[in-house]
Amino acid sequence: MTIEERLSEMGVKLPTPAAPIAAYVPAVQTGNLVFVSGQLPRVDGSILHAGRLGTGVTVEQGQEAARAAAINALAVLKLHLGSLDRITRVVRLNGFVSAAPDFEQQSKVIDGASSFLQDALGEAGRHSRVAVGVASLPLNAPVEVDLVVEVRP
Amino acid sequence: MTIEERLSEMGVKLPTPAAPIAAYVPAVQTGNLVFVSGQLPRVDGSILHAGRLGTGVTVEQGQEAARAAAINALAVLKLHLGSLDRITRVVRLNGFVSAAPDFEQQSKVIDGASSFLQDALGEAGRHSRVAVGVASLPLNAPVEVDLVVEVRP
Amino acid sequence: MTIEERLSEMGVKLPTPAAPIAAYVPAVQTGNLVFVSGQLPRVDGSILHAGRLGTGVTVEQGQEAARAAAINALAVLKLHLGSLDRITRVVRLNGFVSAAPDFEQQSKVIDGASSFLQDALGEAGRHSRVAVGVASLPLNAPVEVDLVVEVRP
Repeated sequence: MTIEERLSEMGVKLPTPAAPIAAYVPAVQTGNLVFVSGQLPRVDGSILHAGRLGTGVTVEQGQEAARAAAINALAVLKLHLGSLDRITRVVRLNGFVSAAPDFEQQSKVIDGASSFLQDALGEAGRHSRVAVGVASLPLNAPVEVDLVVEVRP
Repeated sequence: MTIEERLSEMGVKLPTPAAPIAAYVPAVQTGNLVFVSGQLPRVDGSILHAGRLGTGVTVEQGQEAARAAAINALAVLKLHLGSLDRITRVVRLNGFVSAAPDFEQQSKVIDGASSFLQDALGEAGRHSRVAVGVASLPLNAPVEVDLVVEVRP
Repeated sequence: MTIEERLSEMGVKLPTPAAPIAAYVPAVQTGNLVFVSGQLPRVDGSILHAGRLGTGVTVEQGQEAARAAAINALAVLKLHLGSLDRITRVVRLNGFVSAAPDFEQQSKVIDGASSFLQDALGEAGRHSRVAVGVASLPLNAPVEVDLVVEVRP
C-alpha cells in the first residue's frame, strides 16, 4: 500500500499547500534531507482552533490543530517529492505550542502531529522531537510544526 | 558580481562578528552544511530596537532588527568560509520574535531577514523558514535569527 | 581517556534515559548526524528546579537544570551509539528557557549545558547554539535542550 493509499484509508485528503505568507519557500532539499518550513493548522484558508493553550484552546483542540499542521507538512512534501513514498524517515519534528505561562501539556498537544505521522508513514514516521510553549504564533495559530525529512532520490 | 560586491551596492558593510556571549562558537560545519548560531541584532555593540513586539517595538523596527541579525549571520559566514560565494543555498532560517501574547505578525517581522537574504544571495538565498513568538530573548533583543547553510568546498 | 572515564572523573553518572513522554523516539540518525530529542532536566524521575526563570527559578538553578538536561542528552547518545567516543562533534545545541517576559539571561542559563559538553567532550563539544526564552515547557521544566551531533560509523 502506498502512503497516499493509507492516507486515503485514514480519510485524509492532502490540501494544496498554501503559498508561504512571506518571503520564503515551503521546502528546501540539501543532499537527501528536506527541510519543511513551519506549518500552521490552516484548513480551507482558516486557522483551526485559533488562540492559545491554557487560555481557551483545549488540549484536544490543540491535538487536532497539530494533526492539521502535520497534514499540511505532508502536502508540502508531496508537492516537493512527487510521491510521499520517497520519504525514508522523518528525522526531526519541532512543535511550537502557543501557550500560557502555566501550561504544561505541550507534549500531549504535539502528539496530535506525532501520532498522525506514525499512523501515516509507519516506521518511517518515527521521529525525534522538540516540543515547547511559545508566547504567540503567526495568525494567532495555536501550534506550528516543522520537519526535517530524509528521502531517497 | 560577487556577493560582497552586491552587499556593497546595497550599502551593507559586514561587521566584525561579535564574540559569542557565552560558551559556544559562532558556526560549526558538518559535511557541506554550516550551522550558524543564533544571531542578535547587535549593531556597534548595542541591541537595535531592544524590547518586545506588541508592547513598544513596531513591526517596522522588528524588520530592521531581523535584517541586522541576518547581516550578522552573513558576517559569521564570511569569517567561517572566507568568501560568501561559497554559499550554495540557505537551507533553513529560524526566526524568534520577542512577542506579546496577542502579537500575530511574526512572519512580517522575520521577512526583514528573509528579504535581505534573497536580495543579497539571489536564488541561493531562498530558504525554508520557521517564525515564532517567544517570551523573551538574550539582552532584551527583539529578534534572534539562526541559519543552516549549504556550502561548496 | 574515554569520554565515559572523563565523565566519571567529573562525578557524572549517566542515567538510564527516560522513555519519551509521548509518541516519538529519543534519537534519529541520518547519515552521520544524530538528532537528539528535546531533553528535560529530569533527575531520578523528577524535574530539577521546576518553574520559570525570572519568577522564582534563579540563574544558578537554571544552569544546574541545563546541565542536567545535557547529561540526559548524553545518556540518550550513549544508548544510541554504544560508545560516546563515536561523537566527532556537537553541531548544534538548542536551548529553550522557560522565562518571564523581562528575563534577559537566557545565554547564561544555557551555558550550564554548553560548559558541561565542552568539559565532557573537549574540542568535539564546542557547538553552535541557539538560546531563547519560551512561555512554558512540558512538565513545568525550567529548560529544554536538544542536540544535533556528528558521529563516526
